[in-house]
Amino acid sequence: MVTMEIARQQVAQSDTAQRVAALNHNDRPFHAVLAQQFDRANVEQICQLADMIRSIAESRQGSQYLRTLLSHRRAMLYFIQPSTRTFLSFTAACQIVGTPYSEVRDRSTSSEVKGESEDDTIRTFSQYFDFIIMRHPVEGFAEHVARMLNSMHRPIPVINAGSGKDQHPTQALLDIYTLYRAFADPAAPRGEPRYTKNIFAGKTIAFVGDLKRGRTVRSLTYLLCRYPGVRLVFVSPPELRIGDDILDHVQRHNIEHEFQDDVRANIGDYDAIYMTRLQDEHDVAGESKKIDYYRYSLTYEMARDFKPGLAIMHPLPRRHELDERLDALPQAKYWGQVQNGMWARAALIATIFNVDGPIRDHYQAYYTF
Amino acid sequence: MVTMEIARQQVAQSDTAQRVAALNHNDRPFHAVLAQQFDRANVEQICQLADMIRSIAESRQGSQYLRTLLSHRRAMLYFIQPSTRTFLSFTAACQIVGTPYSEVRDRSTSSEVKGESEDDTIRTFSQYFDFIIMRHPVEGFAEHVARMLNSMHRPIPVINAGSGKDQHPTQALLDIYTLYRAFADPAAPRGEPRYTKNIFAGKTIAFVGDLKRGRTVRSLTYLLCRYPGVRLVFVSPPELRIGDDILDHVQRHNIEHEFQDDVRANIGDYDAIYMTRLQDEHDVAGESKKIDYYRYSLTYEMARDFKPGLAIMHPLPRRHELDERLDALPQAKYWGQVQNGMWARAALIATIFNVDGPIRDHYQAYYTF
Amino acid sequence: MVTMEIARQQVAQSDTAQRVAALNHNDRPFHAVLAQQFDRANVEQICQLADMIRSIAESRQGSQYLRTLLSHRRAMLYFIQPSTRTFLSFTAACQIVGTPYSEVRDRSTSSEVKGESEDDTIRTFSQYFDFIIMRHPVEGFAEHVARMLNSMHRPIPVINAGSGKDQHPTQALLDIYTLYRAFADPAAPRGEPRYTKNIFAGKTIAFVGDLKRGRTVRSLTYLLCRYPGVRLVFVSPPELRIGDDILDHVQRHNIEHEFQDDVRANIGDYDAIYMTRLQDEHDVAGESKKIDYYRYSLTYEMARDFKPGLAIMHPLPRRHELDERLDALPQAKYWGQVQNGMWARAALIATIFNVDGPIRDHYQAYYTF
Repeated sequence: MVTMEIARQQVAQSDTAQRVAALNHNDRPFHAVLAQQFDRANVEQICQLADMIRSIAESRQGSQYLRTLLSHRRAMLYFIQPSTRTFLSFTAACQIVGTPYSEVRDRSTSSEVKGESEDDTIRTFSQYFDFIIMRHPVEGFAEHVARMLNSMHRPIPVINAGSGKDQHPTQALLDIYTLYRAFADPAAPRGEPRYTKNIFAGKTIAFVGDLKRGRTVRSLTYLLCRYPGVRLVFVSPPELRIGDDILDHVQRHNIEHEFQDDVRANIGDYDAIYMTRLQDEHDVAGESKKIDYYRYSLTYEMARDFKPGLAIMHPLPRRHELDERLDALPQAKYWGQVQNGMWARAALIATIFNVDGPIRDHYQAYYTF
Repeated sequence: MVTMEIARQQVAQSDTAQRVAALNHNDRPFHAVLAQQFDRANVEQICQLADMIRSIAESRQGSQYLRTLLSHRRAMLYFIQPSTRTFLSFTAACQIVGTPYSEVRDRSTSSEVKGESEDDTIRTFSQYFDFIIMRHPVEGFAEHVARMLNSMHRPIPVINAGSGKDQHPTQALLDIYTLYRAFADPAAPRGEPRYTKNIFAGKTIAFVGDLKRGRTVRSLTYLLCRYPGVRLVFVSPPELRIGDDILDHVQRHNIEHEFQDDVRANIGDYDAIYMTRLQDEHDVAGESKKIDYYRYSLTYEMARDFKPGLAIMHPLPRRHELDERLDALPQAKYWGQVQNGMWARAALIATIFNVDGPIRDHYQAYYTF
Repeated sequence: MVTMEIARQQVAQSDTAQRVAALNHNDRPFHAVLAQQFDRANVEQICQLADMIRSIAESRQGSQYLRTLLSHRRAMLYFIQPSTRTFLSFTAACQIVGTPYSEVRDRSTSSEVKGESEDDTIRTFSQYFDFIIMRHPVEGFAEHVARMLNSMHRPIPVINAGSGKDQHPTQALLDIYTLYRAFADPAAPRGEPRYTKNIFAGKTIAFVGDLKRGRTVRSLTYLLCRYPGVRLVFVSPPELRIGDDILDHVQRHNIEHEFQDDVRANIGDYDAIYMTRLQDEHDVAGESKKIDYYRYSLTYEMARDFKPGLAIMHPLPRRHELDERLDALPQAKYWGQVQNGMWARAALIATIFNVDGPIRDHYQAYYTF
């Protein structure tokens, strides 16, 4: 309880720039906690690195090379909020770079039942492991942990795999990585040159559904504001409109945007459609039941109106808002999006432990002609 | 619910030959789903390979060689039906061939609580991992998964580690591997020559106990019908006799067989006794309580009547039907049978990913004289 | 139930010397079950080896070398009593020496629900794995398992990670390792020479708190009796005094000792203070509530009276008896103590599998000048 209060106060007291500075401090490990820590250059580097890792991993030799990179590091996956997709994505990412990991997914098996504070639990992890990947229900807790670890004798980095309703920075990275791959010129050479110009300029991206309560749309919108010339369309029921803080951010960055209340209107204009499910678990009094979610759903019949180059995305899990029959279309990018998460996370871990250089060198030596 | 229906209909609609053809399709991964997929040549190859892996693993260098074979693959163990023995056997098999794995053993921690379909859960696994080992309560579900994955952009193989009451093909493989090892001429050289003649001809194998409700006896009987000259004795209470479909199969293959209702009758004739426990968890109205299971139990006192070369087997767990004091006898093969499962599963995984050739070459080079 | 009785009777029937002889038998694996198995030479060797492993692990190459040492062995972590700290410590130790492991932490997912005896469960483990690390609520159960495994065809070693209230030998090893590191001359060369004289002679060590019900103090006291010249102070409420069996042992070894009922008395005399929490989960009728535990607590204000070279230890988890503000002091050794556990356990595993020699050689070749 006390811990939750501390975490919330810290977040409230400091402004974003100061918070980012503390997380990116030169003398301390890099903690990947907030989407705001990643500027366009960081994002491009991680996308390029993810592409390289993916290519290297295709061969047995390449895969075995990757597994030597971080076999000398050990990870703790502290996931006390239920999650399969993100958890498995991180385990697979650790396996790709050869990092052994242990996991704690249930508070009831831990020493907290003997009265230990959660801070002490995390201090214990920091004695055994070289980094912590954490998913936690408390907003700002990952940031609190980063600060606490920075004050220890042997600070180790933290990766935020989702903290409360506010932040899920690696989801934002995998979403923008998916857009980069969808929009990149397929004829462009893989790797660096492919991602170093603003391929978002002139593109129209629609966010569809429950924009109020889904943190993925919030984080991705934040990142997209770094790309002048992108156009955003927010398609949602009036009662589930995107938050004012995000709109504020969009306006301050002069990003062209508009609102719709039906996905079918102008559907042929969209270069990307980012679908979301109704987050009715956050309902206070069953208010979701009054919404006609068909207006925020994609059916197979709508496919004739899609742009050929459209990218359909979804953070998953999906319900009825995204027709399974669309899975077979080339425009369906959501299963690839799942896999992109694994590669982007492997790239992030590699970057934090400074083996991005060796990966680039290996790639240049063996995979470019 | 819908998924269960689909799976059942698929199984009912297609006949075995068609089903096997779909699972063994040349352009698709090999899915190990049905015992019927394995003919005598397949079985012999897997038994030989299991012996080779076991020999190679004896030395530290050999063990380290094996761990390089599939270190570039990653496995998902989807075990939502409780199982320790089979689960640990597969984890050990993965460790032997160097394959990292992740596990999902509890539906309640997964995205299904957010309304995801199980098909989508498995599609997600297929983005992160190179194969799926699954144990599932629904009959035919592994087969349904194999078909679904074959329709995806990047199909990956499935291994059935037990689906409902019908199939447990790797148990059948380890059982027949145990019989091969028990009946093989100890003077014969290890590896291929040891297993390439019909060493079952002239052998009498007794199946004892609850033959109606145990899937292991069903699968093993199926495989044994491929060996002309074997003789089968079904020892069970009348109410727990082996299913008519299996008897049908035995008759069609002209396999000599008879029925008994007491294990003590003719006990000295048996070359193998395959014990099973009473599966009273499947009772409808406590019918098991009326059975005198002593007639289907082995006690220490019976040992004086055993053939010297007898092989006592049991799929385990055991209860009172198999006296612990028998464990010390040379005829007790059930603990070895447990270990055989690990080696046979490692051999199956190696075969699916086409590293059986390199293992044979390594074995020929270093372990034969 | 039967098993529990057997285990208790075995412990009662045999005296310590006989029990130790059975565990250290030359023709059988070394089972690390009782603190009494470790004499001063053993302890010194493990402490030295732990230091060497720690140094080697500092570099990437060293760490990768260590991971080849036992990559051909596989471990079962059978932890059916809740434990995070010890469990993670052992997983990290396995990762350091490259040993793959599987875990069983919940009896309800195991075959025991189908009526299997726990002995059969452990026999199954012994078919798949090369050693068992176990934490179990039943006193003497690890010892029973060691005897049972010794009678099998392929005996494998057991490491006791805590059995009931009596023994937790690896905790005793990490505690004494922490004291060695605290008292060793920092100018002495690392490795063997650093630990081969009795650096405990003339040191005063205070044990503070619930000395009656904590097994860590019991085991550590036992080991300390091997060091003539050490002085022990037992600081506890009268109702939670250390057990008579331990006092007996202390007296028989002529170890100077005294009793206190307030940690503040003579606090400046102590070279080490070993703090413990109130084990109120063992209360029969809430008797702990009557105790003023402030007399057995360290506050920040007391720091001005500490010896400069004092070592504050705690087995953790802590509650209010150990002020968080003390964490930043050089005297606070409890977080290092956590990490020492990981290195000491890696050293123990290496010793059991006879790779201590290669580690020493590697260290001598690359890390001494």
